[in-house]
Amino acid sequence: MSKNPEKLQPKLARLNEALESGALEPARRMLNRGLAPVDVAHLLESSPPKERNVLWELIDPELQGDVLQYLGEDVQTEFLYRMDAQQVVSATEGLDVDDLADLLQRLPNTVIQEVLASMEAQERQRLETVLSYPEDTAGGLMNTDALTIRPDITLDVVLRYLRRHERLPEATDTLLVVTRSDKLIGGLPINRLLVSDPSMLVREVMDTDMVTITAMLHETDVASLFEKFDLISAPVVGTDGHLLGRITIDDVVDVIREGAEHRMMSLAGLDEEEDTFAPAWRTSRRRAVWLGINLITAFMAAAVIGMFEGTIQQVTALAVLMPIVASMGGIAGSQALTVLIRGIALGHVSGSNLRWLLNRELIVGALNGVLWAAVVAGIAVLWFKDIALGGIIAAAIVINLLIASLCGTLLPVALKKLKIDPALSGSVILTTVTDVIGFMAFLGLATLLYL
Amino acid sequence: MSKNPEKLQPKLARLNEALESGALEPARRMLNRGLAPVDVAHLLESSPPKERNVLWELIDPELQGDVLQYLGEDVQTEFLYRMDAQQVVSATEGLDVDDLADLLQRLPNTVIQEVLASMEAQERQRLETVLSYPEDTAGGLMNTDALTIRPDITLDVVLRYLRRHERLPEATDTLLVVTRSDKLIGGLPINRLLVSDPSMLVREVMDTDMVTITAMLHETDVASLFEKFDLISAPVVGTDGHLLGRITIDDVVDVIREGAEHRMMSLAGLDEEEDTFAPAWRTSRRRAVWLGINLITAFMAAAVIGMFEGTIQQVTALAVLMPIVASMGGIAGSQALTVLIRGIALGHVSGSNLRWLLNRELIVGALNGVLWAAVVAGIAVLWFKDIALGGIIAAAIVINLLIASLCGTLLPVALKKLKIDPALSGSVILTTVTDVIGFMAFLGLATLLYL
Repeated sequence: MSKNPEKLQPKLARLNEALESGALEPARRMLNRGLAPVDVAHLLESSPPKERNVLWELIDPELQGDVLQYLGEDVQTEFLYRMDAQQVVSATEGLDVDDLADLLQRLPNTVIQEVLASMEAQERQRLETVLSYPEDTAGGLMNTDALTIRPDITLDVVLRYLRRHERLPEATDTLLVVTRSDKLIGGLPINRLLVSDPSMLVREVMDTDMVTITAMLHETDVASLFEKFDLISAPVVGTDGHLLGRITIDDVVDVIREGAEHRMMSLAGLDEEEDTFAPAWRTSRRRAVWLGINLITAFMAAAVIGMFEGTIQQVTALAVLMPIVASMGGIAGSQALTVLIRGIALGHVSGSNLRWLLNRELIVGALNGVLWAAVVAGIAVLWFKDIALGGIIAAAIVINLLIASLCGTLLPVALKKLKIDPALSGSVILTTVTDVIGFMAFLGLATLLYL
Repeated sequence: MSKNPEKLQPKLARLNEALESGALEPARRMLNRGLAPVDVAHLLESSPPKERNVLWELIDPELQGDVLQYLGEDVQTEFLYRMDAQQVVSATEGLDVDDLADLLQRLPNTVIQEVLASMEAQERQRLETVLSYPEDTAGGLMNTDALTIRPDITLDVVLRYLRRHERLPEATDTLLVVTRSDKLIGGLPINRLLVSDPSMLVREVMDTDMVTITAMLHETDVASLFEKFDLISAPVVGTDGHLLGRITIDDVVDVIREGAEHRMMSLAGLDEEEDTFAPAWRTSRRRAVWLGINLITAFMAAAVIGMFEGTIQQVTALAVLMPIVASMGGIAGSQALTVLIRGIALGHVSGSNLRWLLNRELIVGALNGVLWAAVVAGIAVLWFKDIALGGIIAAAIVINLLIASLCGTLLPVALKKLKIDPALSGSVILTTVTDVIGFMAFLGLATLLYL
């Protein structure tokens, strides 16, 4: 019982000590024999660039592939690009085909060709099958290590056949039943094999109603199927029903986590694969783009204010209060937007219930608009002793919250239809709308009333 | 091969047709026999309240429990609260202990007691074990259906023992080896059982180095272990090493998805269990709180602007440009904040590398500050023909982006230390800081220069 989570921390502390005191040999021993590859990967991802490079150099070349497969895309690419084809070949020996395909997809085509050329024919063919599908489809996610059996043998023969193996492929919960031409016709769950009479035929016991996945299915749909049916593994078939491979739950867990993370990171204009310890220069360049896009929207809001400079000069209280109108709209809109983005991701939102949702959001916008408009108006009147100002800001807040609800609901649906990621671009567009409408309504109404 | 995802949509369309034409009997048949409980749950979650109630009434009472377990917390609670103890008992018959415990934890204590009283002694004891642990720990997540064997029998005996079962508990990939007093001493992976010589003893084949989970481990740590070791199931033990139960990957997948979803929803002040189709009144009340909190911060920003009313009256261009300074700070800060929140969630951030991260963020803030300050200053000078104004806004932007970087980095770490959820409160506090500092720096510098 030694794989206890508590035991990792002291190991890491000792490793840090060794590194800081310059004792590279003990550090090398710990990295290569004291820690699991997944822990080494976590350690690399938690280290600033300089320490990370020192650690990487200390890892034995034949262990580097094991570590590589557990790294995030960003960090993985960083190390892969430093290796030549020969190093890639020796580092990735023994990896599963799906993990190997994931790694290779980050490399230039010439390196992929060299790696492929260095492999045995059968292994190469398997790898080429996986590489022929886009990375975000079932085909790109699958492994080719499925155990297959024929329908017309007895379970006893199956048991003896299994015993001829050293070990079974990981997460094997079902043996796949195929015809002579490799067409998938059913599955024999291991747990059913174990409780059934050994003299029965596979055909009599097998499950013909199992979930099968077509190779071009998008990975998020694969994840939904796994979640829905509590799957541990599922076979992947071509359009003609031929068995191509098998997807296991560990790969699906990554898809699920990355999907949810993607939505959070996108809302701040970030990539979910972003390295926490990316160097300052790379980070600056990536974030500059997002700041630039937001600057354009900020200038649009400024232009609206600029239209009312004369009014502001006469009533400076407007300048004091106008950010409140914009900010309340932004918050209300982003709440509607977030609920819709999640609803779309979960498959809850469809044409038939969108009208209900829009209606609900408009009612929510109106109720909260009236509530907070009253509060803000009260404070504004007390602050500036100006009843008209209270009326103006109340009206502007109600208008902006209604527009925010409308926009927060329809924007993600429209972006989704246009195949634009609503999590990434939704919040920028929404804030532009609520800023522009907020300033326009508040300052426009004031101009009408005061001038 | 019938469990194809494409087949659900036409079924739902037919169901909708039946409901709309008032053909309740065909609809009832489809709900109870044509659809899997998980699909019915998805249908309920995708329906506005009125349709949802009609659907619920059409589901056979003995199927309601099956459907309930697949519903989100919010919707689940809604239906559970309408049932009396007797209905809960009949609806939840046949559920796994962990799913049943999840459901019961939403109910008032009196109902829990009634349900417990109606159960058989053994089942009740199992349920009480699970209920005795907090919902978000390994103990609350576990099931008590583990198959156990003794170490001193042969694999052949194990195989014959298994064959006496109708079926094995779901996701059984390992048989747990316990002493006579139920102390866990190892695990026999099914896949190893299948490839080993049947005359060997369990003790010779079993894995003594398996991952074991203590009952009080937090569910997010459980999820990390499952991800790290690609587990399908893991035993849960008490502090004394006695076997309590077993956690399976399907429950862990929920934890992983909800954790990532929680971070996204929290950034907008929402709950990850929120029902997409919650009625307007409930939604308004929940969101009003968040709007109110944000209103306080908006008034703080307004108060800062109010300090400089005199300056704005003289130079109205300040009112036009000031939202740009605040907005750039908010965006830059939220990027740092999001990276840190994710880094903390992934376990990348620790005391030893926080200094490096802060340093990196400050450099990024400075680089992007200087870049965009130059751009904004250029546009401001061209727009208002005022060179001083360009200098003032450039300085204010650099200052605000540096403060935003500082705050975006340290705030989540500090909140985490104070055991406050950084995803929920981080963005409000951050925006307050960047608004206040942005307006203060820009208007303050202008007052110094112009007056």
